[in-house]
This record gives sequence, structure tokens and C-alpha cells, in this order.
Amino acid sequence: MSEGYTVAIVGATGAVGQKIIEKLVERSFPFRNLKLLASKNSAGKQVEVNGFLYTIEEATPEAFQGVDVAFFSAGGSISKELAKEASSRGAIVIDNTSAFRMDKDVPLVVPEVNKHALHEQKGIIANPNCSTIQMVCALEPIKQHYGLTKVIVSTYQAVSGAGVAAINELTAQSTNMKEKNPNPHILPVKSSEKHYPIAGNVIPQIDIFGEDGFTFEEHKMMNETKKIMSMPELSIAATCVRVPVVTGHSESVYLEVDRENVSVDELKELLSNSAGITVQDKPEQQQYPMPYFVEDKDEVFVGRIRKDPSNSKGFHMWIVSDNLLKGAALNSIQIAEALIEEGILKEV
Amino acid sequence: MSEGYTVAIVGATGAVGQKIIEKLVERSFPFRNLKLLASKNSAGKQVEVNGFLYTIEEATPEAFQGVDVAFFSAGGSISKELAKEASSRGAIVIDNTSAFRMDKDVPLVVPEVNKHALHEQKGIIANPNCSTIQMVCALEPIKQHYGLTKVIVSTYQAVSGAGVAAINELTAQSTNMKEKNPNPHILPVKSSEKHYPIAGNVIPQIDIFGEDGFTFEEHKMMNETKKIMSMPELSIAATCVRVPVVTGHSESVYLEVDRENVSVDELKELLSNSAGITVQDKPEQQQYPMPYFVEDKDEVFVGRIRKDPSNSKGFHMWIVSDNLLKGAALNSIQIAEALIEEGILKEV
Repeated sequence: MSEGYTVAIVGATGAVGQKIIEKLVERSFPFRNLKLLASKNSAGKQVEVNGFLYTIEEATPEAFQGVDVAFFSAGGSISKELAKEASSRGAIVIDNTSAFRMDKDVPLVVPEVNKHALHEQKGIIANPNCSTIQMVCALEPIKQHYGLTKVIVSTYQAVSGAGVAAINELTAQSTNMKEKNPNPHILPVKSSEKHYPIAGNVIPQIDIFGEDGFTFEEHKMMNETKKIMSMPELSIAATCVRVPVVTGHSESVYLEVDRENVSVDELKELLSNSAGITVQDKPEQQQYPMPYFVEDKDEVFVGRIRKDPSNSKGFHMWIVSDNLLKGAALNSIQIAEALIEEGILKEV
Repeated sequence: MSEGYTVAIVGATGAVGQKIIEKLVERSFPFRNLKLLASKNSAGKQVEVNGFLYTIEEATPEAFQGVDVAFFSAGGSISKELAKEASSRGAIVIDNTSAFRMDKDVPLVVPEVNKHALHEQKGIIANPNCSTIQMVCALEPIKQHYGLTKVIVSTYQAVSGAGVAAINELTAQSTNMKEKNPNPHILPVKSSEKHYPIAGNVIPQIDIFGEDGFTFEEHKMMNETKKIMSMPELSIAATCVRVPVVTGHSESVYLEVDRENVSVDELKELLSNSAGITVQDKPEQQQYPMPYFVEDKDEVFVGRIRKDPSNSKGFHMWIVSDNLLKGAALNSIQIAEALIEEGILKEV
């Protein structure tokens, strides 16, 4: 380990931070040193990574001295406080929060879609929202080949997107589905006034509401998709719903292409040959993606591809992926890998 | 109880049959006698209804002698076998299965929408699919006032729609969400080859697949909506998904009206004043419908009404209702009540 990069992980004890560490090792990311950063409370704890012991340090501005790449996944306020501290010390920040995603000076990147945008980076690169990433992976090849004019998506999002406390809340409530006083205190939004049970329920609120009646999660899906795909005029609308699933976001997507006579078979063929996508679409064998089976898998799974019965340019599909991997940790590391490939992160 | 109708309930021991009995009593439906019919296995059992003991009889053709109204909810094959036997003996059949719904001689009725169709009945009236009923209740007033040109719906359907065995399967699997061998044998379709877990999962299959890649449940939603609303040319597409919820179907609906300048407030006002609908739509107070809170409630709940960001005639909404009540038992009894109001079922 004498060669390679010094990598910092901010939020190393969180659900996504843990997955980032796992994936760095699994993908043999060329790191020489790891700096595991977290809140003061976690500082001093020891963590074993690939046979080496690392001590968690407090995330302070000085901690980024000598860091080449810093992965941030400790919430938007920590990113706002420390990301610029890190980049001013020479680190390239890959931020997994929503803090900078819509900042025009910050590229918002899914490598399969817009790796080229990395060349515009000024020290901070944003990792998109989990539900956005898996959708644009499937939409981009369609746009490239057939054009894309309209997207309507309804999501079925797992609780792990709301953190470990939300997973614990679902698990605890599930052990007694008939309990009529489940005492929820995390979902839908921890800091909001009202909380609702998630076991035996679905909640049509993720993040807080904007004045237009859409939630911020829905805004993220709509605005981030336009930015990543460089389609500011795309007609897109989202309805985001939390479901009692631990890991794996599902999406029911309607889209319209810009060409007549595209067949379902062509779409299947196209997506089968697209980076990061696995088509699971054999209805006659009851084969389609489901969140229960995507946990710990890297790919974006697509199935139930159908032609709209009324609009010859309309199609429906069902997209599922592990929201902690392609939706977060994996995509962040793929951004770092792309920075090396593109020569932006210099060889050391 | 010397006056009133002789009412038969076929499938009296099932989930919907039980709800029909409850609702007949609760709504003081004018019955003089109840005939509780079921399979040979259940015959002879005694059931108390409103202080009277009834003995369950085997559902045979002869059992319908003297019956005025017969509610069928024992599966399509029983309806195909016995509905015409019942109607030939003078009963009006209200069938809760899909056996006759698309039969051109059988009215398919949601009283709030097309009560007038009851006058075309020839002895059998069909109760629509649960997910269809709650949607058309919300769509009909919109169509009446603003026109309706397009509907795209993604559903979040409860397991009770698949019967008591499916509820038991969800409950058993939920007690140990981490169990990786849940041994499913009911969902998504009992008679199909493959079964998948429902706890911690969502399954994008309800009923079997057609050759166009849509499931029969999706066909039902599309075809029944056109028939009930008398809109054979309506552009409508459905994606039907089973979620780990016991009771209460939810629907994310996109629709386009046929008039410019319709506001969200107008839609809220219209739906608030429509029969059978309760608007729950105060995002600033985190108020929106959820399946957890609709169990045992008669109404169709509508919320999250939003204008599409790109299409000035497009709207999104979220519709939730108890699939065993308005989606099944309640609607069946409302059909019987409408038959009396309309003078089709003669006063006795």
C-alpha cells in the first residue's frame, strides 16, 4: 500500500459510509491511506478494514490536510460546513448529500450518463439522489437512441434511504403488525412534526413539502434528472412514496420517446447492452425485478417493459436497484474511478 | 323482520363475504332472511348475525329458490357455475368476481358513477375490481366537469385483495424480516409456478400476464374503467403492484383534463363535494391519505393533488380506500340499495 491515494470518508459510521468502505476494498480502489471521519462522538473508535485497523477521527477542517479524495455522506449540513474546507486543502470532494447538487459550479454525475461533466469540476462533485440515479441509468440510452420527451415516475422507496434509525423502526413495527400503537418517531421525516407507521403502510411523503405540493424528494428527481441528462426542457413529474422495504428502491416509469415504431424488443435489446443495467423481463416465467432480490447487487435492474396501449411513442417500465449501492456508495466510488480514468485525479 | 328481501351470500365465510354481512347489518339493509352459502366443507356451521343464528348451507342451484338478491364472492368459477342458476330462479345476482364484468349483457356498476346502467340488467350485475372502483369514484366528477383524456396509474395494493391466506403469509413473514427463507406459497398468484416473499418486498405482478406484457389486473383496471365511465376511447394505462400492506389500496394517478386553466383548488373543491369522496390534502400539516388509516372506512380518500409541472392540463393525485369495503363489500351493497331506489328490486 505504498502507492495510491489518501481517501477520507466523512460519515464513516453511517449506512452509506459503511458501504463506501466495503466497496473501496471490493473494487480494489487504489488507496494508500484511509481517513475515517465522523462526529466527535465516534472519534477514537477503531474499525478494521481489509485486515488493517483504522481509528475514527473527528471531522475537522484540518483533518483533510493531505487528502486526495473525500467522500461525504454525513448529511447536508456537514457537507456545507466542511466540503469547501476539504477542497481548499486540495482534496476532490464527492458529496453524497443534496447540499451542492443544483449548484451550477458543481457537476452532478452518474458516470454511465455524464462522465464528461467531471471535467468542469472545481473541487466538489455531487452524487445524485438515490432514486434519480437508477432512473437516469435506464433513461439515458433510450434518450440517446430514440429521444425522450416525457417521464412520469411513481416510486416505491425503501426505508434505508432514511438511515439506520428508519430501518430499526420498520423492523420493530413489523414484529407485531397488529399493534395499533406503534409509536413512530422517525418516518416520514425525522425533524417534522408528525410521524406515521411504516409497517403495513405506505407513506406518500419523502422529505418536506414545497409550495407547489411536490416534496423536495420529488423536486430532486425532477431537477436532478434534467441536470444530469442535460435536458432542461424535459417534461418530468415524480410521486415519491415510502414503502415497508428495507433496501431496494422500485420505480414505475412511463416515458415517451421521440420516434415512431420503436418496439419493446428493441428497448430490451438496447437496455441489455447498456452499462450497469441488467434486464429481467420474462413475464411468462414471472421474471421481473424486485427489491427483495437486489440487495448487495451493483446493477440497475429493468423489467416489465411494455408499450402504452394508447400512445405509440409511450412505454412503461419497472426499475429496481439497491439504493445504498448504485443509489449512493457505488456511484460515488465510480465517480472517483472515473476521475482517475479521465486524468482529473492525477496518478500518484 | 317480517318484511324485506331474502338475501343470499355466496362465499359467506370469505374475507369479502364477512364484510358483506357486517355492512348489511350496519346499513340496515331491509332483509327478511339471510341465506349464508358456502362450499360443502363449511355447510352446517352456525354463524350469529345481529343476534340471530344462521346455519351455513351448501351453495347449490336449488339453494337460490326464493332468493331476491344474491351476493357472489366465492371466486370466478363458482360465479360461472351458479350465477345463472340463481338468476333463472328470480334472484338478482351481484357478482364480486371478474366472471361477467366485461360481458356486454352485464352492467358493471359503481353507483356514484353509473347507477343508470342498472336498468339494463338481465339478472346479473357485476361489481368492478377493487382498484378500479376507488379510481373511477375520483375520476368521474373530474370527467363530468373538465373532461378527461388520459390516465396513467401505478398501484400500491394490499394483500387482503388476495384473500385471508395472503394476509397470513404477510403476517408470518413480517415477524422475522431477516429470515432469508420465508417459503412463500400464495403470492403473487397462488396457482402460478413461482411465489415470492411479500414482507420487505414489493411484487410487480397481480394476477397472471397477458401476451401484451400487462397483467390481467392491469387489463381489468384499464378495461373496466372504460366500461364504467362509458369512455371506450380513453387513453389509460396501469401498473399494478402488490405491497406489504394488509388492507387499503393506494394509487398514484396522473390524469389530463380537457380544459385549460383548471386549478388545484377547483379540483379539491369539486372532489370535496363528490359522493363518497373525502379529500385529505393539507401538505403543510402532513395530511394525505394512507392505507394504515383507511381500514374499515367507507370513503375513497384523495390527496396530494398537484398540477403537472409541464402540462397545463395534467394533474397528479393519490387515492386510497379500503379494498374490502368500497373496493368490494360496500360497493356490492350500494348496488343492491340502488336497485331498490331505482325500483328495479321491487318492494316486498
